[in-house]
Amino acid sequence: MASEIFLYWGSGSSPCWRVMITLEEKGLSGYRNKLLSFDEREHKSQEVMEINPRGQVPTMKHGDVIVNDSIAAVLYLEAAFKGQGTELIPSALAKQARVLQRITEVNPLMEKMRAVMYYFVRNENNISQDKFKQHKAELRAEIQLWEGYLRQLGGNTFITGKDFTLADCCLFPLVAVLVRQGMDLEKHAPNLARYYNTLKERPSIQASWPPHYKVSPNQDAFTDLY
Amino acid sequence: MASEIFLYWGSGSSPCWRVMITLEEKGLSGYRNKLLSFDEREHKSQEVMEINPRGQVPTMKHGDVIVNDSIAAVLYLEAAFKGQGTELIPSALAKQARVLQRITEVNPLMEKMRAVMYYFVRNENNISQDKFKQHKAELRAEIQLWEGYLRQLGGNTFITGKDFTLADCCLFPLVAVLVRQGMDLEKHAPNLARYYNTLKERPSIQASWPPHYKVSPNQDAFTDLY
Repeated sequence: MASEIFLYWGSGSSPCWRVMITLEEKGLSGYRNKLLSFDEREHKSQEVMEINPRGQVPTMKHGDVIVNDSIAAVLYLEAAFKGQGTELIPSALAKQARVLQRITEVNPLMEKMRAVMYYFVRNENNISQDKFKQHKAELRAEIQLWEGYLRQLGGNTFITGKDFTLADCCLFPLVAVLVRQGMDLEKHAPNLARYYNTLKERPSIQASWPPHYKVSPNQDAFTDLY
Repeated sequence: MASEIFLYWGSGSSPCWRVMITLEEKGLSGYRNKLLSFDEREHKSQEVMEINPRGQVPTMKHGDVIVNDSIAAVLYLEAAFKGQGTELIPSALAKQARVLQRITEVNPLMEKMRAVMYYFVRNENNISQDKFKQHKAELRAEIQLWEGYLRQLGGNTFITGKDFTLADCCLFPLVAVLVRQGMDLEKHAPNLARYYNTLKERPSIQASWPPHYKVSPNQDAFTDLY
């Protein structure tokens, strides 16, 4: 039951958004939740640390069960609510393999996006221009991998084929960040652009759209990616 | 059938070892495989790139099914060989949640170990001594998290409780690297030390022990961690 779920989350956190899309798809829209402020460091509050010693979001409880890592959480939700809402892991083994593979591949995409964004925002690690160029090249290559996955599937599909799966719950938030941060998807990754334009209208995604994206302007971390 | 599986792997790669322990536990010891040389960059060969565009190991085929990411691969193997060998994901949901959570938490442990090791070996990112100290502090905190998980379970157990699971397949190779790289586990993490000493004798782990660990001396990346 939706009321047995409690989610701590932050607006604009891609890992949180993955879980929130999954909750919507599983027909659990009424889940209890608390939006935390990163600026106020509420994710490091005692309330959160008691459930999640890493002090991160998402932090999720389902009754007495605690699952905090976003990928563990979405896999858990699909298992716990099997037969309810959208089937997010196909039963056929070969399809299941592809979904699992794409879910886990979302991590390197996120890491490569972060490497560029952190430099752009505050050059946190004081890296050189050469290193920044290398980070950008690695991110471009990573984006083209995903563009290739869609191209090989023949175009107008979800990331693992004709069905929406957990892999889409995990991938979409990152594609939305590419757009929000100024990358010209239409020009450099037309299949990803079509993917974004189709999925952004999906009810589960609309319902969970990060609230601050709606009111704060887009940013520029990926405007000069190419 | 074991003969339908083909694994490309590298000696000493923790992600490969995870998959190899899992294969042994699932009663698939006879799987076909090819040991690649990182020094010769064989993981970037055309033979591998055709199956895995990331050019990484593990790279695994099961019949026509390709699963390359280590976490996707172990989840897939458990699903594909359910009812055979060791049950590595418990059917009870609460236990399943804990196994999934610990499997995914192995990634931050590996990242924090790498941050220290890369600095130790070649100071790849030319970081400052302050940054190196910070990396070491973060790794110590991470190790203590895992030490705490075992302590909370009351001592002499596997990482999620009394049963060996996929979480152990994923965690053990990293604990072995802590030991190999000179960390004094007995002194700083006695529960992890006991965990290591118990699991290292397990047949699946002995059968898949990285061959070069047996012939090359231990190293020192974590000798001065504390």
